[in-house]
Amino acid sequence: MTDKKIRLGIIGLGAEGGMYAQFIDQGMVPNMQIGAICDTLPEKKGRADELGVPFYEDYIELLESGDVDAVVTTVPHYLHPEMGIAALQRGIHALVEKPVGVYTKQAQELIDFAATKPDLTFGVFFNQRTNPLYIDLKNLIQSGEFGALRHTSWIITTWWRPQGYYNQSEWRATWGGEGGGVLVNQAPHQLDLWQWMCGVPKKCFAKLAYGYRRDIAVEDEVNAIVDFGNGATGHFMTCTHDMIGTDRLEMLFDKGKIVVDGSQKVTITRLSDAEQAISENMGMEEVKLLFTGQLDTKKLMSVEEKSYESVWGYQHATVMQNFAANILDGTPLIAPGPDGINGVRLANAMHLSSWTGQEVDM
Amino acid sequence: MTDKKIRLGIIGLGAEGGMYAQFIDQGMVPNMQIGAICDTLPEKKGRADELGVPFYEDYIELLESGDVDAVVTTVPHYLHPEMGIAALQRGIHALVEKPVGVYTKQAQELIDFAATKPDLTFGVFFNQRTNPLYIDLKNLIQSGEFGALRHTSWIITTWWRPQGYYNQSEWRATWGGEGGGVLVNQAPHQLDLWQWMCGVPKKCFAKLAYGYRRDIAVEDEVNAIVDFGNGATGHFMTCTHDMIGTDRLEMLFDKGKIVVDGSQKVTITRLSDAEQAISENMGMEEVKLLFTGQLDTKKLMSVEEKSYESVWGYQHATVMQNFAANILDGTPLIAPGPDGINGVRLANAMHLSSWTGQEVDM
Repeated sequence: MTDKKIRLGIIGLGAEGGMYAQFIDQGMVPNMQIGAICDTLPEKKGRADELGVPFYEDYIELLESGDVDAVVTTVPHYLHPEMGIAALQRGIHALVEKPVGVYTKQAQELIDFAATKPDLTFGVFFNQRTNPLYIDLKNLIQSGEFGALRHTSWIITTWWRPQGYYNQSEWRATWGGEGGGVLVNQAPHQLDLWQWMCGVPKKCFAKLAYGYRRDIAVEDEVNAIVDFGNGATGHFMTCTHDMIGTDRLEMLFDKGKIVVDGSQKVTITRLSDAEQAISENMGMEEVKLLFTGQLDTKKLMSVEEKSYESVWGYQHATVMQNFAANILDGTPLIAPGPDGINGVRLANAMHLSSWTGQEVDM
Repeated sequence: MTDKKIRLGIIGLGAEGGMYAQFIDQGMVPNMQIGAICDTLPEKKGRADELGVPFYEDYIELLESGDVDAVVTTVPHYLHPEMGIAALQRGIHALVEKPVGVYTKQAQELIDFAATKPDLTFGVFFNQRTNPLYIDLKNLIQSGEFGALRHTSWIITTWWRPQGYYNQSEWRATWGGEGGGVLVNQAPHQLDLWQWMCGVPKKCFAKLAYGYRRDIAVEDEVNAIVDFGNGATGHFMTCTHDMIGTDRLEMLFDKGKIVVDGSQKVTITRLSDAEQAISENMGMEEVKLLFTGQLDTKKLMSVEEKSYESVWGYQHATVMQNFAANILDGTPLIAPGPDGINGVRLANAMHLSSWTGQEVDM
């Protein structure tokens, strides 16, 4: 079965869907071909004709056409769970765009339904999980070398969106159309990566600014503190109004620290022993030397710096290839669908906290 | 009167007071001389003898001796307001160590009393305000070139303190002795600089960890979100258990961003216009180019990098010299005493928020 190509139905041929079609058409996803395309706008048929694939205006017709083995849902967020369920009901594998739902209940319905179809593949499009930088860090943290997390902070404001972006379509940045702002549209990637590496928070306090520096109804800035329940804490800041943009992730562990700048440069500092052991074993004489600047603590740590390059399209193509491989030969999914709920739950908790002014127990 | 030297009484000859005595003795404070020294430990008299100055075990005796024009209070924090008031009552100028009090009420009493003595100089020992880096930034922000603050984040974890430091004395890191941990002892400098540059927050939510990674009763970690009341927000993180240490301050404004690394390296990014104007004037064609990576937004900004060196003792000596100059010729104070209350109030608010689990209105 490994020579077979998965025939993908693309539901929604907007900016994202069009890009995926291009990647597949250019052969960037070797185990996949375009099976059919669906869009509610009839004029999109021209592009389907160019690609030589069937076109449907109704996604149910596409699902029942026999033209596709799987679908990807590049449609407004609210529709992801409904379309995912409709596909799985008809024996079609589902690769659901992030967020897997706008609110937790909706996402849970899809996840629960998918659990009743264990033979079908259900993935979520977290392309940043294929970034070698984050894969390396995930493995490093999971190895246990650094011990327990103490604190993490992510300032991710490289999601600059000018007003014209929001004016592009009626549903963009509305409660009815998107169900939120930067938390639902841009930041889900980091909300996923953060929890993937650091664990799932237990409590959250957030201040959100709605239409702060953009003429939109939803949030264009988020400032949150999370509590991982085991003593570890985190801070998350994102917005769409910082044109200069910061992307800085810091993770402090019992045995060292990891700092990521611009999702490209990683600085890993390893302590010679657990920090608490160093602290407890340091005698009074050394403490005195420390305070007169005569103790070189740099001797007790080593620093490793790594740089990563990003290749346009690599991440998205890799998610699709991995999804197809899971269908074809059971290769483990990089981003299983059920993982999608963590980011939705955290985004929901941040909204709720901002509305009530209270810390939210998750 | 400008040739005169102010005779300083040093109340408390511990690590800090001993350092100040050394700076003055070495001539680093040209308009000051040591008038007398006070310590409750009789064995400290030896050092006073070395310096050739009178020694007192009772600070009231020192105040009434006629040996001093001014005092500095290098004593446990709770005593700062009481000693400050006692000095001013006796016509002695008062340079109070930070924090100006442990809690707001106590600090306010001192400030109110000082207001009844307008002819006496009342300063607080915020030596970091003399750091040329922060003076330059304070002036730059005050010039209005950057417009309004939008967000600021300060991760300041370079206050590493091993367990031995806490075990040095009985009163250290206790509620009765210090009235708090990193917020009262180490971070007041940054709490002051932050508010000096960014303004005074109106609300605060904080999570504090008490005895988290040190065997102490008070907080060794703080994670807080503040609200400046005008839309701007801030995040502040500090702890004494990060041996690697981060000192990274970020300030985002309407017209640019300032990032400070390690209190030494400053990166100033200026936008060609206010961010909101750039956002609103960007047409659909440009938005499309932006999303396909073809719009170079770097053309709309310029970056300036500056480095500063720090000289040991310079900051402390400068505060003392400025304090003496204010007494001698009215030179404006770098750190007037009443400014000390902002840091105390913010630290108090953080403690209160952590105890109640609620955002605190300041």
